[in-house]
Amino acid sequence: MANVTIVGAGMMGSAMAWPLSDNGHHVRLVGTHLDTEIIASCLAKRFHPRLRRQLPPNVKPYYVEQVAEALEGVEVVVSGVSSPGVHWIGRTLASHMKPGMKIIAITKGLEATAEGNLRILPDVLADELPVAVRSKVSIAAIGGPCIAHELAGRRHTCVYFASRDAAVLPFFRQMFKTPYYHIFLSTDIIGVEVCVALKNAYTLAVGLAEGMLDRIGGPDEANALNHNPAAAIFGASAREMARIVSLLGGNPAMVNSLPGVGDQYVTCMGGRTVRLGRLLGKGLSYEQARAEMAEETLESAFVVAQIAKALPGLESRGLLGRDELPLTRCLCGAISGNALANVNFDRLFPDDVK
Amino acid sequence: MANVTIVGAGMMGSAMAWPLSDNGHHVRLVGTHLDTEIIASCLAKRFHPRLRRQLPPNVKPYYVEQVAEALEGVEVVVSGVSSPGVHWIGRTLASHMKPGMKIIAITKGLEATAEGNLRILPDVLADELPVAVRSKVSIAAIGGPCIAHELAGRRHTCVYFASRDAAVLPFFRQMFKTPYYHIFLSTDIIGVEVCVALKNAYTLAVGLAEGMLDRIGGPDEANALNHNPAAAIFGASAREMARIVSLLGGNPAMVNSLPGVGDQYVTCMGGRTVRLGRLLGKGLSYEQARAEMAEETLESAFVVAQIAKALPGLESRGLLGRDELPLTRCLCGAISGNALANVNFDRLFPDDVK
Repeated sequence: MANVTIVGAGMMGSAMAWPLSDNGHHVRLVGTHLDTEIIASCLAKRFHPRLRRQLPPNVKPYYVEQVAEALEGVEVVVSGVSSPGVHWIGRTLASHMKPGMKIIAITKGLEATAEGNLRILPDVLADELPVAVRSKVSIAAIGGPCIAHELAGRRHTCVYFASRDAAVLPFFRQMFKTPYYHIFLSTDIIGVEVCVALKNAYTLAVGLAEGMLDRIGGPDEANALNHNPAAAIFGASAREMARIVSLLGGNPAMVNSLPGVGDQYVTCMGGRTVRLGRLLGKGLSYEQARAEMAEETLESAFVVAQIAKALPGLESRGLLGRDELPLTRCLCGAISGNALANVNFDRLFPDDVK
Repeated sequence: MANVTIVGAGMMGSAMAWPLSDNGHHVRLVGTHLDTEIIASCLAKRFHPRLRRQLPPNVKPYYVEQVAEALEGVEVVVSGVSSPGVHWIGRTLASHMKPGMKIIAITKGLEATAEGNLRILPDVLADELPVAVRSKVSIAAIGGPCIAHELAGRRHTCVYFASRDAAVLPFFRQMFKTPYYHIFLSTDIIGVEVCVALKNAYTLAVGLAEGMLDRIGGPDEANALNHNPAAAIFGASAREMARIVSLLGGNPAMVNSLPGVGDQYVTCMGGRTVRLGRLLGKGLSYEQARAEMAEETLESAFVVAQIAKALPGLESRGLLGRDELPLTRCLCGAISGNALANVNFDRLFPDDVK
């Protein structure tokens, strides 16, 4: 039985405690500065207020100020922060990581460089670690459709664990797998991470369809909804996701599988990404929509903004044509250009005859 | 302005009248022997009872007994029957088709041969036409996410028109396209047709997750639903769909686009295929589920049964390994073997490390 520290006590980070605890591991759950109330509740009542569940046994909560203590003597760290926290967690772990320790990350996102590269977040995290330690620490990432409170409810959940270090993957699977948490292994960490980041962007796009319906006054007298445009956008998402995965060096087969369309499907079932899309589809500017959702971390907008930042560099380096990715460009215009999110349905797919 | 006859006055066949009428074409809507009440209502009140809408102008309803009259002097026939009707419509059209006439089909399905081939339905229909006429008639098919009553509500709808005859495709697009009906063209009729047929099978699979939740007594005290398993099944569907499309000679890129995951997404939004899946997931045998849905045409079960029929031939010809398509085989067992539909989540995806 290992000592495992989860850093980030939001829904997804915390949910990882369930399979770990069920396997008898000793779990230390560390809140970030955003999670103080969660940790207070966990300490006082062993009740996680966002997952709305009693913590499982073997889980010890820590405040962010106790992170050094929580990292003392652990073999595995789960990075459970949201994407804006990835540099913070890298810097926080920097002074505590020792050769042989392992990190597994659930954070979803991409980070643009000035040249128009899009980097996966496990690489961004690794760059915050001291050079001497970096190559002696294995980093893996988790991708796939997983609603946190369903994992904590021990619902069947399938995910990929991905790492460039093939040798560490069976170790992680052994540690986390349970009869309800089904883990598949891949060295294509680019493919997995790009899919799970982009699914947030494209779920925003699918959400636009609901807002378009609001804009025309809702269902008509025969109760026609707006699933047809949502589904067209879903299909276009898969195409454009595959293009970006290939562009960044991943295997597009991941799109047509669990981390791509599987994860996007579950994300489209509801939540703040769909809500943001709906507001934009209704005709609000991103600034207006942002104001309506002021309290929420909007990972979808974060990843779209990174893509918008990278597009000029990708084009100037000849990696991407100006006509490619029409749906992605519509999102970038809405989030980074404050434009109205108008999907041009006539351009979403190619003809394959002249 | 052309004369167009739609044969089949169910939801989808009838909905095609909206873009055609909006473009000023003269539409003759012929009910099959299943549609007598629909045609009666259309004649008496110009009201389509299943679409719950007034018929658009330019649409003239006909009973099945008047089919010869309705086919007199038309240039284009829309085949709007359901999959069990494909031989019937082929035989019905046989004596009326003249060189230069064109057929466009919306029927979704596959038909197994004794050797383990799976044939697309436009080819099955063509085989019912007299040899002398067959090569002088162009056949196309429509695939993509289209809920009929949304099309009739003039919601944005994107579809592929596919035909081996590239020259006929721009003709059909010109005839059908409207500001809300967006048409893309492809010569990959195998890819399009296999996708849209299989999406019914795999939507059945996604529906199992809801039934699995029923079986364990519904949501728990923290309201965990069963979206994670549904999404895993959705992801596995896309993988297996791509495998079958390739096997039958289509382009698997169609899966990752509008006719594959786009169409499956919209189909998962509800309806009888999901309901059948839910009953099977709850633990009913197919016979029991069939009895509960006795009044309904179950295209999903029809296509699964065809796949089950083809599997032994595909294997014996060395085209398919026995370990492949675990989800598809689970469906075949449930529909054709009356087995319990138990998804083995540990087998749904491959590891890509040893």
